[in-house]
Amino acid sequence: MSISGRAAIAGIGATEFSKDSGRSELTLAIEAILAACADAGLDARDIDGLVTYTYDNTWEIDLVDALGIRELRLFSKIPHGGGAPGGCLQQAVMAVACGVADTVVVYRSLNGRSAHRYGAGVQTFGPAELLQFQWTLPFGVATAAAMAALWTSRYLHETGATGEDLGRVAVAGREFAATNPAAFFHGRPITLADHQASRMIAAPLRLLDCCQESDGAVALLVTSLERARSLRAAPAVIRGAAQGSVRGQRAMTSFYAGEHFSGLPSMRLVADQLWAQSGLGPEDVQTAVLYDHFTPFVLNQLEEFGFCGPGEGKDFVRSGEHAAGGRLPVNPNGGQLGEAYVHGMNGIAEAVRQVRGTAVNQQKSVEHVLATAGGAVPTSAVLLGVDR
Amino acid sequence: MSISGRAAIAGIGATEFSKDSGRSELTLAIEAILAACADAGLDARDIDGLVTYTYDNTWEIDLVDALGIRELRLFSKIPHGGGAPGGCLQQAVMAVACGVADTVVVYRSLNGRSAHRYGAGVQTFGPAELLQFQWTLPFGVATAAAMAALWTSRYLHETGATGEDLGRVAVAGREFAATNPAAFFHGRPITLADHQASRMIAAPLRLLDCCQESDGAVALLVTSLERARSLRAAPAVIRGAAQGSVRGQRAMTSFYAGEHFSGLPSMRLVADQLWAQSGLGPEDVQTAVLYDHFTPFVLNQLEEFGFCGPGEGKDFVRSGEHAAGGRLPVNPNGGQLGEAYVHGMNGIAEAVRQVRGTAVNQQKSVEHVLATAGGAVPTSAVLLGVDR
Repeated sequence: MSISGRAAIAGIGATEFSKDSGRSELTLAIEAILAACADAGLDARDIDGLVTYTYDNTWEIDLVDALGIRELRLFSKIPHGGGAPGGCLQQAVMAVACGVADTVVVYRSLNGRSAHRYGAGVQTFGPAELLQFQWTLPFGVATAAAMAALWTSRYLHETGATGEDLGRVAVAGREFAATNPAAFFHGRPITLADHQASRMIAAPLRLLDCCQESDGAVALLVTSLERARSLRAAPAVIRGAAQGSVRGQRAMTSFYAGEHFSGLPSMRLVADQLWAQSGLGPEDVQTAVLYDHFTPFVLNQLEEFGFCGPGEGKDFVRSGEHAAGGRLPVNPNGGQLGEAYVHGMNGIAEAVRQVRGTAVNQQKSVEHVLATAGGAVPTSAVLLGVDR
Repeated sequence: MSISGRAAIAGIGATEFSKDSGRSELTLAIEAILAACADAGLDARDIDGLVTYTYDNTWEIDLVDALGIRELRLFSKIPHGGGAPGGCLQQAVMAVACGVADTVVVYRSLNGRSAHRYGAGVQTFGPAELLQFQWTLPFGVATAAAMAALWTSRYLHETGATGEDLGRVAVAGREFAATNPAAFFHGRPITLADHQASRMIAAPLRLLDCCQESDGAVALLVTSLERARSLRAAPAVIRGAAQGSVRGQRAMTSFYAGEHFSGLPSMRLVADQLWAQSGLGPEDVQTAVLYDHFTPFVLNQLEEFGFCGPGEGKDFVRSGEHAAGGRLPVNPNGGQLGEAYVHGMNGIAEAVRQVRGTAVNQQKSVEHVLATAGGAVPTSAVLLGVDR
């Protein structure tokens, strides 16, 4: 059995995206979940599955009581932070396809700016994850940006991409964000000169190569495609959902990946699964949400998913194919650079809107949308499609 | 689609069970996983799914490299400690049924005695889980035993069960452990008098009502039933696998469960799902592994799964139906009271041996075995069967 076409996203909900939400992550999660239920036209008490990230600080015990959920039949978590959202959705699809649950909510809630800043260095993750820092901290590699910078240096060296090419990713994201009222950087586009003048955070990454730290929550409601057709919103059919991690994969920079050091072979494994599940290919995708915690990973993801050849991400963005009006507009919500950093979950909500035809920066003739997660960690992605 | 009969446990592996393993939890996990692969006759490099507990301290990134895994397509975690193992197996079944992965290893590794003692009070779990302790710590309710004691007091009051009835659970478990060379309490049975003379830990729970703290790891290898039939060991068919959590559920003692305070309604939800998935009932089960972190929960689980009527757990054990030679011998490996506390995963391995007919305390004419998890937390269970 393939999971393709078995389930759909029938509801999306989100809080505002800010730098100081002023309320708990539990409250944010509840707000987003209730909004997703309202969007689908379902009663939150009928939720029977809750899936989130191991990094999420909410407790499904609290959500069950707060939402009045009667019977919870699926509760699971996906590790690796931003690598999780596609995996969370895969959980929901599997549960629906297997008859384990009917109404699964996938969510992420974080006060990522006002409470625990993700850019501030070593986090209080599990002991095994902390251990890896023993190898990098003595050399000053503590933050996500510093880790990503190692990967980026090699990527630029091998492909001939430049800091300006990274800037092209940032400029396009901020251009989309500028016309998205939900985006934190609404009304605040940048130029390539702004990018090149922004301060160096961890060479070659500048400030404007790094995504935001955000407060906010996003929830997605998944049910069977058949049931979704009877609900309020048009179904966003889940054509594929996959996770991937390969040998040599570490977090952010895979020091022992050898010849694949500057690639994302785990994302390639995800791509291969999505195409196999769906029977589709890159030519079938009209717009994509590519995980943009740092700009260079967008370039390589274009390559790993086959939107261009190896090392050709730079050419893709130099000809503007990733921007408004291009062949594959990327992150039409503004991405995590421009809209908000909700660990990729807001990107999947945007993919749903693009499928529905209700996005603020709606792309034309959308049949299928790719939304990826994480990229430089054990990772995941989903392929959504119009119901035909 | 039902998940019943789609997948089987084709390999089991474990380390020795001790109080001081002398090696890391990562090493223990690797040993158990390699043993499970050898048991199934499969190469560990072909594993494509790894599922464990959120409480597990190993990192699948490390396991992928250590085991030489090529492509990992499923990695997920189940919360709530001892409530997890049935949920982990459900993950494996769903992934196999949906074509997401072919060779999924479910495992748990912990130095639960030599590193972090589970009985020692408040643990370093996530922030939301820690928050609940604000309500109980001021009253001295810090340990799992103290929390379980609140539930137990009410259960005894409502059902007329006594401390001696709890002792009957402990005596039967230790009797099985005494003849199990893998059990920590091998060769060390106890009498009811021993139980009654053991010191009070948190009234009404005595020392011999409390399970062990153990070092050790257990791994289970899951694949499709069809593939399992071609492997070395006889398949333990997964007839049902379910999770459950209901409104009012907290961890260990559900303070707001109202009329269900002394029951385990989340476990009842799990039972209902298992019977529905499998088309079987309690009369089809010849032996059961019931999660015995504390003895009283065994009594109530007998009731929730319908092996006896409400409040009749005491009568069941008074007539010895749970012991060797009884109608439903419980925990023939000695349980967590007698064999080891590997958060329920060792109990599922015992259920596999009972299905295979290779257990050290093999029960007669086994067709189906129930193995439960957690009990007093958001919980899970599996129903295994002989391949016919």
